[in-house]
Amino acid sequence: MAVRQLLLKRCSDVLTLKINKGQFSVTVLSQLGKMKYFLPLVFLSFVSGYVYETKWYTVPVDHFSYSVKDTFKLRYLVNVENWNADAKGPIFFYTGNEGDIEMFANNTGFMWDIAKDFQAMVVFAEHRYYGKSLPYGNNSYTDPKNLGFLSSSQALADYADLITYLQKSNSKSKAKTYPVIAFGGSYGGMLSAWFRMKYPYIVDGAIAASAPILQFTGMVPCDAFNRIVTSDFGAISPECPKKIRESWKAITRLTSKDEGMKWLSANWTLCSPLKSDKNVTLLKEWLAEVYTNAAMLNYPYPTNFLLPLPAYPVLEICSKLIANVPKNKTDPDQDKALLMSLFSAISTYFNHTGKTKCLDVNENDSDALMDKGWDYQSCTEMVMPMCSTGEFDMFEAKKWDLGKEAERCKERWGTDPKPYQAEMLYGGRKALPYASKIIFSNGMLDPWASGGVLKAGPKGSDIIAVTIPEGAHHLDLRESNPSDPASVVQARKIHVQYIKKWIKAARSRP
Amino acid sequence: MAVRQLLLKRCSDVLTLKINKGQFSVTVLSQLGKMKYFLPLVFLSFVSGYVYETKWYTVPVDHFSYSVKDTFKLRYLVNVENWNADAKGPIFFYTGNEGDIEMFANNTGFMWDIAKDFQAMVVFAEHRYYGKSLPYGNNSYTDPKNLGFLSSSQALADYADLITYLQKSNSKSKAKTYPVIAFGGSYGGMLSAWFRMKYPYIVDGAIAASAPILQFTGMVPCDAFNRIVTSDFGAISPECPKKIRESWKAITRLTSKDEGMKWLSANWTLCSPLKSDKNVTLLKEWLAEVYTNAAMLNYPYPTNFLLPLPAYPVLEICSKLIANVPKNKTDPDQDKALLMSLFSAISTYFNHTGKTKCLDVNENDSDALMDKGWDYQSCTEMVMPMCSTGEFDMFEAKKWDLGKEAERCKERWGTDPKPYQAEMLYGGRKALPYASKIIFSNGMLDPWASGGVLKAGPKGSDIIAVTIPEGAHHLDLRESNPSDPASVVQARKIHVQYIKKWIKAARSRP
Repeated sequence: MAVRQLLLKRCSDVLTLKINKGQFSVTVLSQLGKMKYFLPLVFLSFVSGYVYETKWYTVPVDHFSYSVKDTFKLRYLVNVENWNADAKGPIFFYTGNEGDIEMFANNTGFMWDIAKDFQAMVVFAEHRYYGKSLPYGNNSYTDPKNLGFLSSSQALADYADLITYLQKSNSKSKAKTYPVIAFGGSYGGMLSAWFRMKYPYIVDGAIAASAPILQFTGMVPCDAFNRIVTSDFGAISPECPKKIRESWKAITRLTSKDEGMKWLSANWTLCSPLKSDKNVTLLKEWLAEVYTNAAMLNYPYPTNFLLPLPAYPVLEICSKLIANVPKNKTDPDQDKALLMSLFSAISTYFNHTGKTKCLDVNENDSDALMDKGWDYQSCTEMVMPMCSTGEFDMFEAKKWDLGKEAERCKERWGTDPKPYQAEMLYGGRKALPYASKIIFSNGMLDPWASGGVLKAGPKGSDIIAVTIPEGAHHLDLRESNPSDPASVVQARKIHVQYIKKWIKAARSRP
Repeated sequence: MAVRQLLLKRCSDVLTLKINKGQFSVTVLSQLGKMKYFLPLVFLSFVSGYVYETKWYTVPVDHFSYSVKDTFKLRYLVNVENWNADAKGPIFFYTGNEGDIEMFANNTGFMWDIAKDFQAMVVFAEHRYYGKSLPYGNNSYTDPKNLGFLSSSQALADYADLITYLQKSNSKSKAKTYPVIAFGGSYGGMLSAWFRMKYPYIVDGAIAASAPILQFTGMVPCDAFNRIVTSDFGAISPECPKKIRESWKAITRLTSKDEGMKWLSANWTLCSPLKSDKNVTLLKEWLAEVYTNAAMLNYPYPTNFLLPLPAYPVLEICSKLIANVPKNKTDPDQDKALLMSLFSAISTYFNHTGKTKCLDVNENDSDALMDKGWDYQSCTEMVMPMCSTGEFDMFEAKKWDLGKEAERCKERWGTDPKPYQAEMLYGGRKALPYASKIIFSNGMLDPWASGGVLKAGPKGSDIIAVTIPEGAHHLDLRESNPSDPASVVQARKIHVQYIKKWIKAARSRP
């Protein structure tokens, strides 16, 4: 559930944000040479400097029942150039999440960075129903009967199956099995952690980066996510979230009259002028996305997703918002002044290049598999309650409404969201005392840390909680970068230290 | 896979043994009052003195995918008369295996025996597709599409679902969750162990009695099972298995001529005279069953299954066989003499009452759900290789032939047996280092100990291997009996000791 999934999650009942594929050009900053700056989930594979072979492995559509005997080809990317099979070199295995696996291969530089030292085979396995791993080809999403096999349990079994095959097909006389370390970010990190929990005999350890395995019903407060967003903005200045909170009321007041709608449409250069309350709601939802995305993507260097963003976008937004806030509190046009300040602030987000002609809150990219697939998952087992109080966060109050979500899911997919399914299958916090050898890393700037594991397990369990104060969404999995804060450099060192330990233990198993 | 499943397993390609339901009357021995003597898997519920309420819980047909949205009612039996909910009394949960759950409730006296002291709720959950827990009613077995949801993974998820419901529906303010201990014998024991491995956050410990979780491809030699049968017979006297081994050749020699077939048919009082090699093969298969069943059911008191059996049937068979073996090795009719001795010996098995008029090797009870269901499971994921060498065991050499089994499965069920599925799903021996709080108990007289866990896990793991030298198939789960050998009494004490420990730990969890 990286950026775009979040968008869907938050506002799919009224809005889906359009992403113009043409906007996805990647800025390779000349001064940093081959450095790649991609944002989570959406990257362009052609920019990658990583080399891999694309392979396919046939897996059953259904690993747990025998009614459907269909099989399909799961895509995986593999690089063995550093692999030392004779010395039991490990397999670094990325548990693909909701997107084209090439995106992840090209955006998980950490695995590539350390593969040489570890003499590791690098494997990126695609999550079924994403990218090119479509069990029923073009009909995978068209028929509900076909789509139903999109689930986390099935994906984990795909990975178990594939690793078993990789072990057997590569086995040498002296090394019967190779150590396996799973890596994953976001939902991919959840899969890595769950993989180790459910199949510890197949994977020897897991790096679960920004994996909100607790973001389920009853496990964490549903407003925690938005409190972190607010906290990110408040860290710049308490004035910043305060002004944002005021802005919702200002918009409401202003747009209660036609004149105000016209004023806002003109001054915010909206592509489609506001004409109804629904339009206003869409605009507010879009704004909430801006703040959320800025928090998630609050990386220490310029990035490019949805649109080009500066380094530390939250700082950019807040700086402008605070600088431009009118001092005169008796100003009769206070609402307009505040909203002009806000417009200036968010322009750094939606119009960083200065080339955007108008602000389009109705953009939509619902054809993308990753959007559709994750929405389906959120309408079956990945039900993650989100809400805001308006009191402890800077958003308008919005309750989590399972009933409304269920209606939406029924209409879109014909499914019932199962709010307790993930808990039954994976146990949430209750599963942790029985797990071992998993690093849960969380950036403290990342709103998804709300559902992350922030506490280590019992001594000896190697359930490690690594917090990265200056980190946004799974920054630690990204390629090393000169702008990296010390905390992420240190986090990666911890990862390496435990990976070494786990590999050593795996090598000595019978 | 208790007795009758084994029968199918061993000879389903050429023979299924008919069981006349009229023969299942249970002899309640007057001198032992209310003692119940049932054999594994097939008992009559009406003889039970146990009291329980029959309840139903709705579960999804498919827990892991979302194409099939059907649900069905799972049957479970529950007794709360001893349950002390206020004091966090535990839930004793039998993970039902391949049969009507009332059979298990009535045959797992150990759970009932200790429930009072533990102030426990007693629950017996039925395995889907057995007894009355038929997802598609009378059509559950008729349509392959319906039958495919018969799998161990789905059954375990049923149990996880049911326990979650039991916890929630019974939760009191002071006790949010109750300790849960799983119990199971044979395949039910495998499920108990796997349940703890896959859902440790739902079940706090497991008593896995005679659970051959290693009886899969590549984990144990396929002839180990038959070596234990042989060993049981050899323990009476080395002469016994020797004579049995000689008997196969004697039968072959004798029946190579029509006269010999006639002689054997007459002297063994066969219901259907031998007329072909196929008939002879059937007879041999039937004999192999006799020895195998006698070993599995080598209980210290008389029992009643397939037909009435004396206490320690192996001893009975061997005693007669040895006593009657001709001393004169130059006897020209040596084969006939040996076979008459053998007939006398096996008469204690098939004609203990003296009322059987003829020996019928063609009996068949293939309508029973338990036979059909387990055969389906053995044709999908529960593929348990069995073979005999004729060298280290007393049987004729017979290789494990997966190809032949696959042909049979294809023909009967349209399925492909997956020899490595159980290993992928449950890990076999490799999963044990990651498991905790499971007692694997094995009777050393039980051929299924071949696939059992006989070695404890690392200190502190509470992976306990309890061996019961004088025990046959999950004797320890049966009701306490005056004839119980000391070793099973001791085994039950160990069970109780660990159950106490696990409950205490569960009560102190947050």
